[in-house]
Amino acid sequence: MIDARLAELYEQHRSLNRFQGNPETLYAAMQYIMDLGGKRIRPQLVLMAAESAGAQAELALELAHAVEVFHNFSLVHDDIMDQADRRRGQATVHKNWDEPTAILAGDNMLVAAYDAVFRYRGPQQAEALALFSKTAREVCEGQQKDMDFAQMNGVSIADYLRMIEQKTAVLLGCALQLGAMSANANSEVAQGFYRAGCALGLSFQMIDDYLDSFGQEAATGKRLGGDIAEGKKTWLYLSSQAISSEVEKLFDQYQEDERIDRVRALWIQQGLDKGLLELAEHYHQLANQEWKSLQMEGCDTQALESLSDWLLGRTH
Amino acid sequence: MIDARLAELYEQHRSLNRFQGNPETLYAAMQYIMDLGGKRIRPQLVLMAAESAGAQAELALELAHAVEVFHNFSLVHDDIMDQADRRRGQATVHKNWDEPTAILAGDNMLVAAYDAVFRYRGPQQAEALALFSKTAREVCEGQQKDMDFAQMNGVSIADYLRMIEQKTAVLLGCALQLGAMSANANSEVAQGFYRAGCALGLSFQMIDDYLDSFGQEAATGKRLGGDIAEGKKTWLYLSSQAISSEVEKLFDQYQEDERIDRVRALWIQQGLDKGLLELAEHYHQLANQEWKSLQMEGCDTQALESLSDWLLGRTH
Repeated sequence: MIDARLAELYEQHRSLNRFQGNPETLYAAMQYIMDLGGKRIRPQLVLMAAESAGAQAELALELAHAVEVFHNFSLVHDDIMDQADRRRGQATVHKNWDEPTAILAGDNMLVAAYDAVFRYRGPQQAEALALFSKTAREVCEGQQKDMDFAQMNGVSIADYLRMIEQKTAVLLGCALQLGAMSANANSEVAQGFYRAGCALGLSFQMIDDYLDSFGQEAATGKRLGGDIAEGKKTWLYLSSQAISSEVEKLFDQYQEDERIDRVRALWIQQGLDKGLLELAEHYHQLANQEWKSLQMEGCDTQALESLSDWLLGRTH
Repeated sequence: MIDARLAELYEQHRSLNRFQGNPETLYAAMQYIMDLGGKRIRPQLVLMAAESAGAQAELALELAHAVEVFHNFSLVHDDIMDQADRRRGQATVHKNWDEPTAILAGDNMLVAAYDAVFRYRGPQQAEALALFSKTAREVCEGQQKDMDFAQMNGVSIADYLRMIEQKTAVLLGCALQLGAMSANANSEVAQGFYRAGCALGLSFQMIDDYLDSFGQEAATGKRLGGDIAEGKKTWLYLSSQAISSEVEKLFDQYQEDERIDRVRALWIQQGLDKGLLELAEHYHQLANQEWKSLQMEGCDTQALESLSDWLLGRTH
């Protein structure tokens, strides 16, 4: 689970690094998304990895902030692309202001994320910067693939998982590796943290997809079946399509609530709800193997293991 | 004028650093805007400043590329914000693809611009990075102000000029200072280059505004009076408003060609066409003073002076 001490440490840092400047519109929009909340998993991962590999968490605070700011940059721009009105129960940035402001707020947050990496004063500065930049590129690539896939037929499940890895998982890998770098970990250890983060990210996304179609609205705070209503080609859709063309017909013939009910019933009948949880569990096990290997290398991965378990068991 | 040798040097570098990768859509969009042409003033400024301050131009190529990529990133996102269909006579990125692709192409170009700065291997790497990032932030701020001002009444001419400085001029200042940094120039010299670039940028923008309202369509390739048709609050508009409220009435009462004809006639009657050229000349003189001072510091600024003169005398 979340380590309250590290969460508090990051919140202090975040409150000392509020976005402010001129023009106020721009900085208010940047701070707004940062203040919408969320679980702050990514900075938590940076700080946990730092301690796990033997550094003081304080040393990695700028890296933790860089990753959280980058994540929020990507949310602002993704919400424009997805034409999403709500984010965490509140209006999205482009709804609260307008699209141009949201584009610029995102741009300036990307710049601010780099600036946070530049402010990092610890071991492996150049490597941290290179990793951050590579990750930023991959996240852009993943998001573009996500959009391309929505227009394409015949996307394979392997391509889909690679897209999710780039869009979501590598940033968690990056977070963990950055933490390890702040402890001047050798490259084998650092890469172990990276792989653990990618596995965790894939598991995380599978749980998200599961909850979207099979969770409890009361717990998630999101409408059940949002992905189905939007016609998203998730793992559930692609796997169902690989079994029979029934899901395509349901997507064609029905809209909204009726589509959601019928598609959910089909997927349960096809055993895909359980299949998706098994896939999440598979990635979770991959992460666990990495924690074990890292333990052999002298890292204290207990807190990270318990965070993995908590993420896999979550219902919201 | 443009130094053909340096232009060729940069073009070689650019052709060796084409954007390519997966997904192809994303990288094609990034390369498309880079290939639309333009005068490549910014990389030229980087390379000229490098030679002027005593470096081999080759050393500064990555910095030149970073600035050009950043400039093109800003064009892609600005065109979305301005809902512009055409850029340099061709479809804009969001018209040729779609808005999500254009947002992501821009994001990934901003990342690529940072990567180019990271690849720079010469003196003052950390300082170059800090300058680049500060400039990126200011350009975002300037663009946001530009949009805010469009909705505001009572924008002062001073505020307008400061906005232009941030949106347009600081990137030219940054280009020149980066070049000077690659020659390991001391901070006084480096800042002289920066100030010269800002002055040049302001002069450049005033010429742009002049040509938009008073140029020759055949030479500019743009429709005459575009700013007037769009109702932009340029220096011409704000200065006219400071003389009388006539321009507000014309903007309210007329559209398109009729508005363009009437507003142009008013501005000529108010002497603002000449006034704007005088302002451009004023900034040009400021730049010239900096070139003179830099010459006293041992820099060979002849090529830069001739580039300034060429930019001020241009008709397209």
